Amino acid sequence: MCQTLQVSSNLGITSRETNYSEWYNELVLKADLADHSAVRGCMVIKPHGYALWELMQRALDDMFKATGHVNAYFPLFIPRSFMEKEAEHVEGFAKECAVVTHHRLKANPNGPGLIPDPDAKLEEELIVRPTSETVIWNTYSKWIQSYRDLPLLINQWANVVRWEMRTRLFLRTSEFLWQEGHTAHETYEEAEEEALTILNECYARFCEEWMATPVLKGIKSKNEQFPGADHTYCIEALTQDLRVIQAGTSHHLGQNFAKAFDTKFVDRDNTLKYVYATSWGVSTRLVGTLIMVHSDDKGFVCPPKLAPFQVVIVPMGRDEETRAKTVGASEEFAAQLKAKGIRVKVDKREKESPGFKYNYWELRGVPVRIELGPRDLDSGALPISRRDTGEKTTVALAEVVAHCEMLMTDIQSALLARATAFRDANTKRVDTWAEFEAAFSGEGGAGFVVAHWDGTPETEELIAEKTKATIRCIPLEPLLPSDNEPGVCILTGKPSARRVVFGKAY
Amino acid sequence: MCQTLQVSSNLGITSRETNYSEWYNELVLKADLADHSAVRGCMVIKPHGYALWELMQRALDDMFKATGHVNAYFPLFIPRSFMEKEAEHVEGFAKECAVVTHHRLKANPNGPGLIPDPDAKLEEELIVRPTSETVIWNTYSKWIQSYRDLPLLINQWANVVRWEMRTRLFLRTSEFLWQEGHTAHETYEEAEEEALTILNECYARFCEEWMATPVLKGIKSKNEQFPGADHTYCIEALTQDLRVIQAGTSHHLGQNFAKAFDTKFVDRDNTLKYVYATSWGVSTRLVGTLIMVHSDDKGFVCPPKLAPFQVVIVPMGRDEETRAKTVGASEEFAAQLKAKGIRVKVDKREKESPGFKYNYWELRGVPVRIELGPRDLDSGALPISRRDTGEKTTVALAEVVAHCEMLMTDIQSALLARATAFRDANTKRVDTWAEFEAAFSGEGGAGFVVAHWDGTPETEELIAEKTKATIRCIPLEPLLPSDNEPGVCILTGKPSARRVVFGKAY
Repeated sequence: MCQTLQVSSNLGITSRETNYSEWYNELVLKADLADHSAVRGCMVIKPHGYALWELMQRALDDMFKATGHVNAYFPLFIPRSFMEKEAEHVEGFAKECAVVTHHRLKANPNGPGLIPDPDAKLEEELIVRPTSETVIWNTYSKWIQSYRDLPLLINQWANVVRWEMRTRLFLRTSEFLWQEGHTAHETYEEAEEEALTILNECYARFCEEWMATPVLKGIKSKNEQFPGADHTYCIEALTQDLRVIQAGTSHHLGQNFAKAFDTKFVDRDNTLKYVYATSWGVSTRLVGTLIMVHSDDKGFVCPPKLAPFQVVIVPMGRDEETRAKTVGASEEFAAQLKAKGIRVKVDKREKESPGFKYNYWELRGVPVRIELGPRDLDSGALPISRRDTGEKTTVALAEVVAHCEMLMTDIQSALLARATAFRDANTKRVDTWAEFEAAFSGEGGAGFVVAHWDGTPETEELIAEKTKATIRCIPLEPLLPSDNEPGVCILTGKPSARRVVFGKAY
Repeated sequence: MCQTLQVSSNLGITSRETNYSEWYNELVLKADLADHSAVRGCMVIKPHGYALWELMQRALDDMFKATGHVNAYFPLFIPRSFMEKEAEHVEGFAKECAVVTHHRLKANPNGPGLIPDPDAKLEEELIVRPTSETVIWNTYSKWIQSYRDLPLLINQWANVVRWEMRTRLFLRTSEFLWQEGHTAHETYEEAEEEALTILNECYARFCEEWMATPVLKGIKSKNEQFPGADHTYCIEALTQDLRVIQAGTSHHLGQNFAKAFDTKFVDRDNTLKYVYATSWGVSTRLVGTLIMVHSDDKGFVCPPKLAPFQVVIVPMGRDEETRAKTVGASEEFAAQLKAKGIRVKVDKREKESPGFKYNYWELRGVPVRIELGPRDLDSGALPISRRDTGEKTTVALAEVVAHCEMLMTDIQSALLARATAFRDANTKRVDTWAEFEAAFSGEGGAGFVVAHWDGTPETEELIAEKTKATIRCIPLEPLLPSDNEPGVCILTGKPSARRVVFGKAY
């Protein structure tokens, strides 16, 4: 027995159609995922949002460890002079950053409060890390002497700061949480393999298997690559407003940082060589990506594997005796579900109505809801609803646990299928400039626009100026075999070796 | 068959007797636990040390969650004005801290390199958090409206910075990693219960059950308590050089921060009241404590529950055929041990001798070593050594896994028993000033010195001036029943209600 549930929509979040941007902001706040802080551009990650991040961390960390990496921790501060050592890197990161200039406050002699103590001015300013290549390579140059010290496969979980002018919860904040891998290798080929292993076996796999989010794997154009990289691989996801989110990057750094920090090793042939490097990272931006890919006008939709609570049970009944019975039965089911490894919450609050609770947990993205009223118990079956489709099924008491287990995998794969279909439906090939300009003329995005480009940074910049569309990536595998056939550039008409993917970036 | 193993001591670390301080520093570096960084006072936590910290985090985090807490994340930066709001807190923390004054660097117009951009000076300086009470209570004042929002039981894992002049790896560094719990309650009594739950059920339990380290639980004197607290509970451990380490603190903050940040709630009686608060933390200092409590002149000694590798297997044999056999057998044992949940490493390096490997893993604190040579295999029994005692036992092949499992619990409890006996042997009662001065006259510590004190901060300061000994805590339970009998102050001869514990602090 199946029926679609219609819940009255007094949830108080703007619909996607009315204002996608408002919808996102309100969802993040009202679903208790994050909050604004008193510090410009810095967010507070609320317990519900942080529980989600912890699940992401655990899954990613397991993948990093399974591919041979270990964790370590490097300092928060980077001496100014370190930032100056790699020419492109300094251009990219030294600009908007938090600069520590003093190590003490003292009472203001000319008024109330505190001032930085002029006697405690640092000889050299410290930068709060925007990324840690410099401070890590300064350390690696001490640790690496011989090929026997290689490869060095280290990851760190840390906070970083990039002074952003326009911020957005999870998607772009001045401080964010991330992991950054930093590896050192004997050869170019080995570093290349590492950068691709992370992209394929960790990042893309995590997005698909855990986030139920299909991603496009590609290589960045020179304009878009990491400052200091030889080349940058990326994964790109599509949002419901048809924009493109860079969800993770994996950089082959060549010997750039080894040269900047003089990191040489004695190779097997007994000669001194510079080390090859990679770095790679994903951040709390993944939470923003997840929200944008799956959620709806009722609020957050979360794939079961990453849901802090996977099942919520709402016991009903007003009088004490009935409540004792339904709460008792709820806790019994909860224990059985926990025994199956399912994260479950019994919402026992007494002053809130069932309807309030349904909305409350829908807003927060719990994948499955069980309603447990006295009559349901008597009838021997419970109504079970799935968050992704709203579908409500009545399930015999003895089948409740198995049904929930089934829904965990079913919802997970349904979300991936839906997001993949959406992505495919919004991937298009464009061959004329008029069509290209038209695609990007609206406020929102235009999906993945697969078009020819003459391969020059100048053309890329000109296209971005005219349309705000940038090259999101050059796909590692063509989306269609014909995408790798030569053609002519959408803007200049010059020859193009293959199609690349354009989009409006978040 | 039992015998004590003597390994030639070419490990290159100073003995504890020669120079305890050097012993510690060399051990931390050579056991690959941490390294100095180029940034003054900041350490690099190396993979082996970080793996230990991760095990600590996991165990503590499970305890916090089991006692009803959730994790969240608050900003790294604290506006200067927030620090000024709580009078004692600002005295304690605003002094030596990292002050961010600019948000951009620019090319130096008068020379090479970068300078802070004068056009990007912040209107209000930001402090890198030395602890997060202020920024968290600023947020809580938004979140808490009613008694139904209470209790709020939140923890965060984070890095903090306190500008330290004299630093020491793990024990005192300018940046360190920690967890900080911040809870909000309706009543004084509930906050009191929370502060004690954390002390007893999380911190002290963790130290005893995981770190095999007995701790003294007590309350701090006013001189030593947290700036802004009503009162501070602590756990104190004894090192092998007879000094005292404050391993963790749990503060009852009263209504101090609620008043500073105007955090009021509508109580059940419909009146507005200030919230009661606690905060509590342990840090990477626990790693330093662990090292100091158990380690020996061969290096790190680690309780099995926290050892990144619990068993190391060293396969032997020089020719390829023999090595294939011993490596194969080692990996079989490793798989069996892993199946029992034991973290195991097979050291297959070919260029290093077995003796080198024994020293290498002893230095790094692996609790159990299995030597696996071709003759051992033929004889049907393997030599298994335990790190804590050096004892070596020959164990039949079929018993190897069970023997290792037994050693995990055996070594864990033996270390606790040893540390407890050491602590008891170095806890003494002193009744005259001459005896007290003599006890603290040496370079090292004097253990826990249990003596009478007249209860005034002035006397405590005078004692510290004369002897460098401070009151480490007033024990929650008297160590001996007679400790709670009245007496006269060791220095002033004035009446004393009970004995307190003095020591030289790390």
